[in-house]
Amino acid sequence: MDMVKSDIEIARAARKLPITEVGERLDIPSSHLLPFGHDKAKISAEFIAAQQSKKSGKLILVTAINPTPAGEGKTTTTVGLGDGLNRIGKKAIVCIREASLGPCFGVKGGAAGGGYAQVVPMEDINLHFTGDFHAITSAHNLLSALIDNHVYWGNELGIDVRRIVWRRVMDMNDRALRHIVSSLGGVANGFPREAGFDITVASEVMAILCLARDLKDLEERLGNIIVAYRRDRSPVFARDLKADGAMAVLLKDALQPNLVQTLENNPAFVHGGPFANIAHGCNSVIATTTALKLADYVVTEAGFGADLGAEKFFDIKCRKAGLHPDAAVVVATIRAIKMNGGAKKEDLGIADLDAVRKGCANLGRHVQNVKKFGVPVVVAINHFSSDTNEEIAAVRDYVATLGAEAYVCRHWADGSAGIEELATRVAALAESGASQFSPLYPDDMPLFHKIEAIAKDIYHASEVLADKTVREQLHQWERQGYGHLPICMAKTQYSFSTDPNLRGAPTGHSVPIREVRLSAGAGFVVVITGEIMTMPGLPRIPSSEKIYLNEQGYIEGLF
Amino acid sequence: MDMVKSDIEIARAARKLPITEVGERLDIPSSHLLPFGHDKAKISAEFIAAQQSKKSGKLILVTAINPTPAGEGKTTTTVGLGDGLNRIGKKAIVCIREASLGPCFGVKGGAAGGGYAQVVPMEDINLHFTGDFHAITSAHNLLSALIDNHVYWGNELGIDVRRIVWRRVMDMNDRALRHIVSSLGGVANGFPREAGFDITVASEVMAILCLARDLKDLEERLGNIIVAYRRDRSPVFARDLKADGAMAVLLKDALQPNLVQTLENNPAFVHGGPFANIAHGCNSVIATTTALKLADYVVTEAGFGADLGAEKFFDIKCRKAGLHPDAAVVVATIRAIKMNGGAKKEDLGIADLDAVRKGCANLGRHVQNVKKFGVPVVVAINHFSSDTNEEIAAVRDYVATLGAEAYVCRHWADGSAGIEELATRVAALAESGASQFSPLYPDDMPLFHKIEAIAKDIYHASEVLADKTVREQLHQWERQGYGHLPICMAKTQYSFSTDPNLRGAPTGHSVPIREVRLSAGAGFVVVITGEIMTMPGLPRIPSSEKIYLNEQGYIEGLF
Repeated sequence: MDMVKSDIEIARAARKLPITEVGERLDIPSSHLLPFGHDKAKISAEFIAAQQSKKSGKLILVTAINPTPAGEGKTTTTVGLGDGLNRIGKKAIVCIREASLGPCFGVKGGAAGGGYAQVVPMEDINLHFTGDFHAITSAHNLLSALIDNHVYWGNELGIDVRRIVWRRVMDMNDRALRHIVSSLGGVANGFPREAGFDITVASEVMAILCLARDLKDLEERLGNIIVAYRRDRSPVFARDLKADGAMAVLLKDALQPNLVQTLENNPAFVHGGPFANIAHGCNSVIATTTALKLADYVVTEAGFGADLGAEKFFDIKCRKAGLHPDAAVVVATIRAIKMNGGAKKEDLGIADLDAVRKGCANLGRHVQNVKKFGVPVVVAINHFSSDTNEEIAAVRDYVATLGAEAYVCRHWADGSAGIEELATRVAALAESGASQFSPLYPDDMPLFHKIEAIAKDIYHASEVLADKTVREQLHQWERQGYGHLPICMAKTQYSFSTDPNLRGAPTGHSVPIREVRLSAGAGFVVVITGEIMTMPGLPRIPSSEKIYLNEQGYIEGLF
Repeated sequence: MDMVKSDIEIARAARKLPITEVGERLDIPSSHLLPFGHDKAKISAEFIAAQQSKKSGKLILVTAINPTPAGEGKTTTTVGLGDGLNRIGKKAIVCIREASLGPCFGVKGGAAGGGYAQVVPMEDINLHFTGDFHAITSAHNLLSALIDNHVYWGNELGIDVRRIVWRRVMDMNDRALRHIVSSLGGVANGFPREAGFDITVASEVMAILCLARDLKDLEERLGNIIVAYRRDRSPVFARDLKADGAMAVLLKDALQPNLVQTLENNPAFVHGGPFANIAHGCNSVIATTTALKLADYVVTEAGFGADLGAEKFFDIKCRKAGLHPDAAVVVATIRAIKMNGGAKKEDLGIADLDAVRKGCANLGRHVQNVKKFGVPVVVAINHFSSDTNEEIAAVRDYVATLGAEAYVCRHWADGSAGIEELATRVAALAESGASQFSPLYPDDMPLFHKIEAIAKDIYHASEVLADKTVREQLHQWERQGYGHLPICMAKTQYSFSTDPNLRGAPTGHSVPIREVRLSAGAGFVVVITGEIMTMPGLPRIPSSEKIYLNEQGYIEGLF
């Protein structure tokens, strides 16, 4: 190509099918599609319920090396692989996560793939989409308001206002809201207390929506949310505030998976929460399981590097939903491998075999980590025009030493035609029955040991640092009957360690735990490590400054 | 009727037309309807732009006496009158406001009409609907985040953090957020400062959306928002933070009017902000002006009593959009008149001619106030089964002494068949050319005099109380070139005065001003009086406790 088109230009030029036609290909009658515009739709609960007796297809996970500013293209490869499987005659659905609004205005970068491997309409998907995250924000903050309102009117439940653990959320990068004092201004405004906001994707409501089997299960889980403790440390539940019914009403439509299409008009389910650094970050269980009933192959992604995304996909989503992944793809780019090998961003255009060889350690550890879960793995090298043959050969040779294979994929530039080889191999691997999936740790392991298992087996840390308060909190939850829950680590995505600057494959580091949070409704314990924030901030020059509507009313500057 | 059905039961039993068919009746091609489900759609900007050269229909305002717990049925009568006009062979569109989510979970009561005069789907309209308010919340809070982010990164614009006037918003009744201290927790979280939240409907962004002519005008107004002042009191605009482009992108779809239908399958445009107590509370200019191009009669409502809703409709919306209202309807119920005459809620079932006669003073003042704007007015008595003939006769006789007529309307029980007489009279009045509309005060009157004009001519107060800070602030804005703006009063809806307990038609009271806020983008000055709150709270027993999904997945307890 002489002129490289931007993602948004390619997306805008897409020849989209009416969404009803995309649904028809999956035998979804249009009466069971709730349209949002002509190119997006939600799938009805009735249709989903009627598919349950069908046989499930094969489940393929796409994960990646640790992200760098060079870009890896995990979502791009997920979409490309889905198109590739359809191209070679397989019936495949892509299951990816929705985009969070907040980061859109911070650092440029979309969540709908890139180049000729995108889902469309990309502007909608990256902005309000079908309103799911707004519904989650509303449901979450309704519960928050009900807590302070309960205290205001007499606090019959005996909530200890110092021990309210349910914060508020906003789908925005707004560091000023991380830590606030609320209810100031006198008697009419309640009892002043310390409080704060997380970004919506970190909400337990988001996790519940992503893990719920159906509306009934959703409501049950919402009721199980612990919002506060009394002075005697006994928990107060959302159910005690009679909040679960109204929250479920707010989430009724949001629970239904969203159907869109790829640039090649193949079906894609975009549903559930991103941010595998602070949340579990997977496509929703309801979307993935529905897709498995409707297709022979389902390609889904897990966020960031496999240390975060894949680990949580296996240990939380697959464990809880009874899913059996059949194959995994670890995505890497030569450029990102070089950065993991010590190359600077400004030098990425220069061939550097030494940096490639060094950086392969990061890729290698991810491949071996995925194997620990019993899932067969292949490597996708997401091709950039600056990659040299020697660099590619070095990676392929390295991957071969791990007993795996690496495939060069050109889906970004060529769509499905560029990823046929990988698609063929992945289909064979998934059909081979080689997968012997099992989670990393058993349910009945003590919570702190589970954290150590992840830190040592996946991060290759030598120790987990936690003060007495944290350890006692974990013990208390075990005594209260929450010891069987899996762990949801909150950790920087840039490193196996908790230090975002430590690239490659570090060993012997420590994993300091800052805070633990019990998500009794979602069913996991969140462990916050290092400096990771559950409410991001905006950069010095937010990308919002470049976003506007052009004379034709089209969005410019989004990507 | 033996069994009185609830609003939600009636709405659920409605035989809705596909929204494309409703659009067809207005000659809107389906390609210009952006569907949200099968029963809601947004109308495209292109279609709207293409209607501008057409002749406009007649504009009819529905307003009311001061609300009481007895209920008045302003939206119900707006919807009923629209159906009534269609029934007598006129082409009419109803233009009402969207519902705010927050109050849904506080005090029971919907915003989609009632009985057999409703717009549907009422559950959707009262919950997320087409996401307009979520978009407004996002756009507003993006600007908030950009302000603190600007200060965090060095404050090049020299914002005085004590003089940041742009708050945050949430579509929730949450008193704990009225007054907060934000940015606590150390260097990484910014500079601690006093801040707070309003409910979304009070956002200037909401007002801008409701007053903007088109996307270009919207973006221009967003840029004009004043977010803060410097130490030298010079204003800092949203434009200075380069926020206007991204905010317009977030509001792109929200600006387009929403088409739904009445129970009788007549078209209704539901678009724009409620809360005429703290906002200007009108259906959007873009929806009303579009409806005027597509129909011979447009029936629109203004919130709460005519002291708030009609005054703002005339002095803000009509003045700014160049609209010429042709007739007005003041809605009353016998029950509400009785409460204005001193009857207690528990005694409303008892005939009480004395209370009716006393309470008529409230109705009378509203009728005379509307006449001050030069608009011909009729009274609609929204019938309740407990009303006696004597009570009705008393009101009709009283209204006759004002030189107006009162019509008993049974649209709640009988739909359009119950409101034919009023519809016929209103159509004749609108066609008569009797309207000599002009706003209450001229643009070039000083701001404080405008406030006094409203307080004295409409509220019948004897004085406006404002301390030196408020008066000086108004003078400063006049010097900065904002003296020509109209006033948007924030006042309790329950009384002509600022005391919610003072029913009837009080005179000689004082109007204390607590605070003034400049909405330079929307183009008005907000004057906050008495104890009115721009962020409501929840009651002791919030209605959320009764809201849930039943076994069939239907919403119960919403209304």
